[in-house]
Amino acid sequence: MDKERTMKEITPRSEDFSQWYLDVVLKAELADYGPVKGCMVIRPYGFRIWELMQADMDRRIKETGHVNAYFPLLIPRSFLEKEKDHVQGFSPECAWVTIGGGEELEEPLAIRPTSEAMICSMYAKWVNSWRDLPVLLNQWCNVLRWEKVTRPFLRTTEFLWQEGHTLHATEAEAEEETLKMLEVYRSFSEEMLAMPVLTGRKTESEKFAGALRTYAIEALMGDGKALQAGTSHNLGQHFATAYGIDFLDKDQQRAKPWSTSWGSSTRLIGGLIMTHGDDNGLVLPPRVAPYQVVIVPIPPRKGDWNEQVLPKAREVMAALKGAGIRVHLDDRDNQQTGFKYADWEMRGVPLRLELGPKDIEKDQCVLVRRDTREKSFVPLAGLPDAARDLLERLQAALLERARGFVKDNTTRVSTYAEFKEAMTGRRGFILAGWNGDPAIEARIKEETKATIRVIPLDGGAETPCVVTGQPGREVWFAQAY
Amino acid sequence: MDKERTMKEITPRSEDFSQWYLDVVLKAELADYGPVKGCMVIRPYGFRIWELMQADMDRRIKETGHVNAYFPLLIPRSFLEKEKDHVQGFSPECAWVTIGGGEELEEPLAIRPTSEAMICSMYAKWVNSWRDLPVLLNQWCNVLRWEKVTRPFLRTTEFLWQEGHTLHATEAEAEEETLKMLEVYRSFSEEMLAMPVLTGRKTESEKFAGALRTYAIEALMGDGKALQAGTSHNLGQHFATAYGIDFLDKDQQRAKPWSTSWGSSTRLIGGLIMTHGDDNGLVLPPRVAPYQVVIVPIPPRKGDWNEQVLPKAREVMAALKGAGIRVHLDDRDNQQTGFKYADWEMRGVPLRLELGPKDIEKDQCVLVRRDTREKSFVPLAGLPDAARDLLERLQAALLERARGFVKDNTTRVSTYAEFKEAMTGRRGFILAGWNGDPAIEARIKEETKATIRVIPLDGGAETPCVVTGQPGREVWFAQAY
Repeated sequence: MDKERTMKEITPRSEDFSQWYLDVVLKAELADYGPVKGCMVIRPYGFRIWELMQADMDRRIKETGHVNAYFPLLIPRSFLEKEKDHVQGFSPECAWVTIGGGEELEEPLAIRPTSEAMICSMYAKWVNSWRDLPVLLNQWCNVLRWEKVTRPFLRTTEFLWQEGHTLHATEAEAEEETLKMLEVYRSFSEEMLAMPVLTGRKTESEKFAGALRTYAIEALMGDGKALQAGTSHNLGQHFATAYGIDFLDKDQQRAKPWSTSWGSSTRLIGGLIMTHGDDNGLVLPPRVAPYQVVIVPIPPRKGDWNEQVLPKAREVMAALKGAGIRVHLDDRDNQQTGFKYADWEMRGVPLRLELGPKDIEKDQCVLVRRDTREKSFVPLAGLPDAARDLLERLQAALLERARGFVKDNTTRVSTYAEFKEAMTGRRGFILAGWNGDPAIEARIKEETKATIRVIPLDGGAETPCVVTGQPGREVWFAQAY
Repeated sequence: MDKERTMKEITPRSEDFSQWYLDVVLKAELADYGPVKGCMVIRPYGFRIWELMQADMDRRIKETGHVNAYFPLLIPRSFLEKEKDHVQGFSPECAWVTIGGGEELEEPLAIRPTSEAMICSMYAKWVNSWRDLPVLLNQWCNVLRWEKVTRPFLRTTEFLWQEGHTLHATEAEAEEETLKMLEVYRSFSEEMLAMPVLTGRKTESEKFAGALRTYAIEALMGDGKALQAGTSHNLGQHFATAYGIDFLDKDQQRAKPWSTSWGSSTRLIGGLIMTHGDDNGLVLPPRVAPYQVVIVPIPPRKGDWNEQVLPKAREVMAALKGAGIRVHLDDRDNQQTGFKYADWEMRGVPLRLELGPKDIEKDQCVLVRRDTREKSFVPLAGLPDAARDLLERLQAALLERARGFVKDNTTRVSTYAEFKEAMTGRRGFILAGWNGDPAIEARIKEETKATIRVIPLDGGAETPCVVTGQPGREVWFAQAY
């Protein structure tokens, strides 16, 4: 059976969110399973989304003064072991190379789960004076963490990401950097992915292995679970101490720098899918859509579309392309129009442009929004401006709708009974008081699956602890991916 | 000792080419040695060159109809073993992961030395019909080959590259694709890197493990040795057979597709260095230079440069930036002007812009070319156009000079004595007849270190074999990196 002729069915979102997610990923050809468990293949349509995201994130990282570099994939075990908390956190997840060039290696090499160990070792060699600071580097690369339960984009053994690694002369500068990059992640998520996020600080139990303080952006997915979508760490002087980085300060004294690291990954594509998708499949914000407009030419009842429709369709495509719009013409002659509509809906293309013989007669076309399915008849004269305008409104509408969803799915509770009730229902974000005790945090997780996603940047409003009634601060809870 | 104050000495090129190369790589901060043998760190200045190269190569790859994707790093041993020649060629160079998540793996996983095995396995799953062809994919990634003798950029255990992998319905289409990508590599090398290359076919002994035919671009380095700078393979139906890829053709018959693969890597940076560099260090073609112009402000004899020079220097920088020129202002206040001149020369910046109080009085500046050291006084009005024009001329001049070098270092020989003499002298390319016998090829290599770099695309002019006197074809020899 020709696979192109098969209508691709997607499990309804309301019926089984998790299966819906996998259906969308596989059927929209974003990714596929590879031969090694947890290692996905990112297919061209999915990878194009990543390229668009990457280009914009890279611009933001460079605009904040960072430069890119590339550090080796393999980290000697002894290097990883220098920072005690760090190795405890990461070593169970490592993949180890033990044979190279046909011989057993003297020391096993870890495939990087993250690059603090490697990069800080090099910094120890490069940094000598206060004039060498700050060091503001970023790298785009693959990393590997041996995960037990995996899901495409959301949790994969190998994933692609950027990891920033900086060094600063003072704690204040390191903290400023950490928060600056958190803000880059927030603005990127909202402006590019139309995905609203909370920002805040992680508790001790949720922070990065080896960090002094971890900050994160957290988004709310369609099933009421939270997704950690980017993290920024103030690493204190832990790594400088462990890797022997020091510098001669302005007073000719040896001093120890402060370091930060921050990362965002292909996981964001999972967030994108689960924030906007619906029963018909993917819904892509225009700014990261491989195709922003797909032209579906309507064949004439009589005669040849090669003469009556396609020439005009190509003209329209050229006009849109010329205006910088990413456009695709679906001129497949072996698929019905209805199939094409469903296919491109499933792939989340923001605007469908229908063009038939009657439209051509009237010098117009039909634009159909993916999000609202709203149709409009648009004159071909001035089409690029109209399409661009509609794409911008669609981008804004997706963010608005997602913000509404977060608002509707945030519950402020004052008793533990209310807390538990919210968690057995639609879940979402729960705002509740916490006394700062890790034991209470652990008990809530045990009993409700909810964890503290973030402590607000201002520390949170004073409120009694939802479990103990003791003095506490209001923090954000949710069940997390 | 403050490392910035140390003048960085480079071994003269004529004295020790190999040491000169390492000095340039390390002192221009293109790369550094990492903790694992053969795994280099690409530092920001070197990585920026790669980013500029990558952006342009990616554009060329996309313009020829390809799309990017991403395939997993780890390949199960059984997958690698499916193509007999391929595994024989690559398995001695593999790094093997044997432990993951704290447990011994049932099957060792190779870190990809190249991705034919992985990608063809996926193609077997994706391709069903003639409508699915051609498949035109590319990926940018890291690969690993366990090398005994390594040198930064030229031969490293881990390197970055792009690898294209395509499938076609017919042999003719596969051959057309293979040659098309060879031409992409040729034009890229000459237009971007100003590095002239030969194109041609590899002999059986030099072809890619598993290929039907391998084509390559070959450049001539400053020491008279050749560098294979990109390869394009017609893989025949070998991989389709080994990985079970087939498709239903237009006549509803099962057919086996033809595949190609082609790659270019960070090795090109090594080629760039050795093509243009001189005793003072790197010489960068403007199109891949991180900074095309560096402004060195000259301090006034009396008074403050913050008042008398820097404001104008910033104005000039803004004007150049506005014209799309990559420019850097060296306003370090702890370095002498002379040091800065030498420093930026060493880093290969194409144009130095000197600006002092007297220049400002005359509304002019001095532009100094890196390649010829030619100075010109240029009015500040119209500077961006003048600079752009000069950069273009410099780019063209580097290619011309390199072409002249290849011409001057190519020897056409008719006797084996002449051949040997050329190889004991300045080496370079040698054009000589070969009877097509691999034993003769091996003997020449054994006795002179020269290998057949390429057979001309037209097969080569008829000439007697330089060793046997038998009928032969003229092919290109050289000692290779």
